[in-house]
Amino acid sequence: MSAAPPAVILVRPQLGQNIGSCARAMLNFGLTDLRLVAPRDGWPNVDAGPSASGADSVLADARVFDTLQEAVADLHYIYATTVRGRELTRPVVTPHRAAAEMRERDAPSGLLFGPERSGLLTTDLVVAHAILTVPVNPAFGSLNLAQAVLLAAYEWYQAGATTEASVLANYDAPAAHGELEGLIEAFDAELTAAGYFAPPETVAAKRMTLRNLLTRPAYSGKEVRTLRGMVTAFTGRRRSRQT
Amino acid sequence: MSAAPPAVILVRPQLGQNIGSCARAMLNFGLTDLRLVAPRDGWPNVDAGPSASGADSVLADARVFDTLQEAVADLHYIYATTVRGRELTRPVVTPHRAAAEMRERDAPSGLLFGPERSGLLTTDLVVAHAILTVPVNPAFGSLNLAQAVLLAAYEWYQAGATTEASVLANYDAPAAHGELEGLIEAFDAELTAAGYFAPPETVAAKRMTLRNLLTRPAYSGKEVRTLRGMVTAFTGRRRSRQT
Repeated sequence: MSAAPPAVILVRPQLGQNIGSCARAMLNFGLTDLRLVAPRDGWPNVDAGPSASGADSVLADARVFDTLQEAVADLHYIYATTVRGRELTRPVVTPHRAAAEMRERDAPSGLLFGPERSGLLTTDLVVAHAILTVPVNPAFGSLNLAQAVLLAAYEWYQAGATTEASVLANYDAPAAHGELEGLIEAFDAELTAAGYFAPPETVAAKRMTLRNLLTRPAYSGKEVRTLRGMVTAFTGRRRSRQT
Repeated sequence: MSAAPPAVILVRPQLGQNIGSCARAMLNFGLTDLRLVAPRDGWPNVDAGPSASGADSVLADARVFDTLQEAVADLHYIYATTVRGRELTRPVVTPHRAAAEMRERDAPSGLLFGPERSGLLTTDLVVAHAILTVPVNPAFGSLNLAQAVLLAAYEWYQAGATTEASVLANYDAPAAHGELEGLIEAFDAELTAAGYFAPPETVAAKRMTLRNLLTRPAYSGKEVRTLRGMVTAFTGRRRSRQT
């Protein structure tokens, strides 16, 4: 897990706004090495800053190269992000797999992304060791440049992230939300009748606590019905005492 | 793996352009159930179509609700996407974990996303069974609405995807790309001298084949140097025959 984050190489990028969006996507997941090969509108590009949304350091440190060969000369593992990988004999890997591979290696890696409109050419792909293809809906594959960068960067970060998901102790199927609302309303109505919601400055907090108590356990439909029966029993007893 | 794709519930979304971008992000990964709670600028919104980039069916089928409670009444598992989950007692899960959970269940799930500027309020979070938080660079967390939708949808699709990464048979460390370029140039120069690149209409194809032959195996630095030695040997022998 000692590998440096991969370089992101944008080959002949067209719009400065998209370069900025790529910088933002990168920095969210700890990638900072941005390389531009023959950007169409030159560099720096005033359109890049606003869409970087604060990832200015990535733009400031971006390096520009005349040729792709120069841009990747120091990289040992190069992934070309494209759906057009079939023309070359290369392994085709998912972003998840590529992230695992890059994490396992000590040598610097790079991720190539083509121009917005046309994508990478076959003559670009030849520098790559593998083709990175994002599995998408076969009926609708429409990822823009920054989204492709985001997904590759996301997987790289997750492959090294130590975040653990905390798990519900109770896996019984929760009731539909409408049933929970009905239960909350029943409690609220009876507690109101019982004068529970006083003094006024405590009402909001009491209602939030009530919601938390009833929604946090993810009660099943049967549990919700049982609780409503209890409310009826309690309040029936109270009313009988009042008569 | 029989679960339907989760619904995406946008709570008080502000910009139509972002709603369109969310629809595009969704459809890339097979999500089609878009629900809008009190969209700021009403619905339909003419700004949504262009940024949907063809995901018009998702926009056309989008349903609008006055309240969040109505929007989620039929859902059994609800994930609120936010970084502000600490105020409530809920499990906090990663997108990867949430995807696995949703795939395991037969009951319909939903993903809540808040307004662009403010995110979800605590009073929105109370309908959720869990908080979905994307692990990001602690020094720079800046995901926009469509990016958050994209990552959640991506993980849902990948959890059911059958795509397998194809693996390199040879895991020896490849040479740096600059070494490979040097090898290709050496072959090219000697083959040119040998008259290999003729007739003219075959030159481009021959050079592409040469590149493929030399780059596809991901030769190590030692293999590259060995190959260059062979070229020298071959051409030396040829020259000696010519004298």
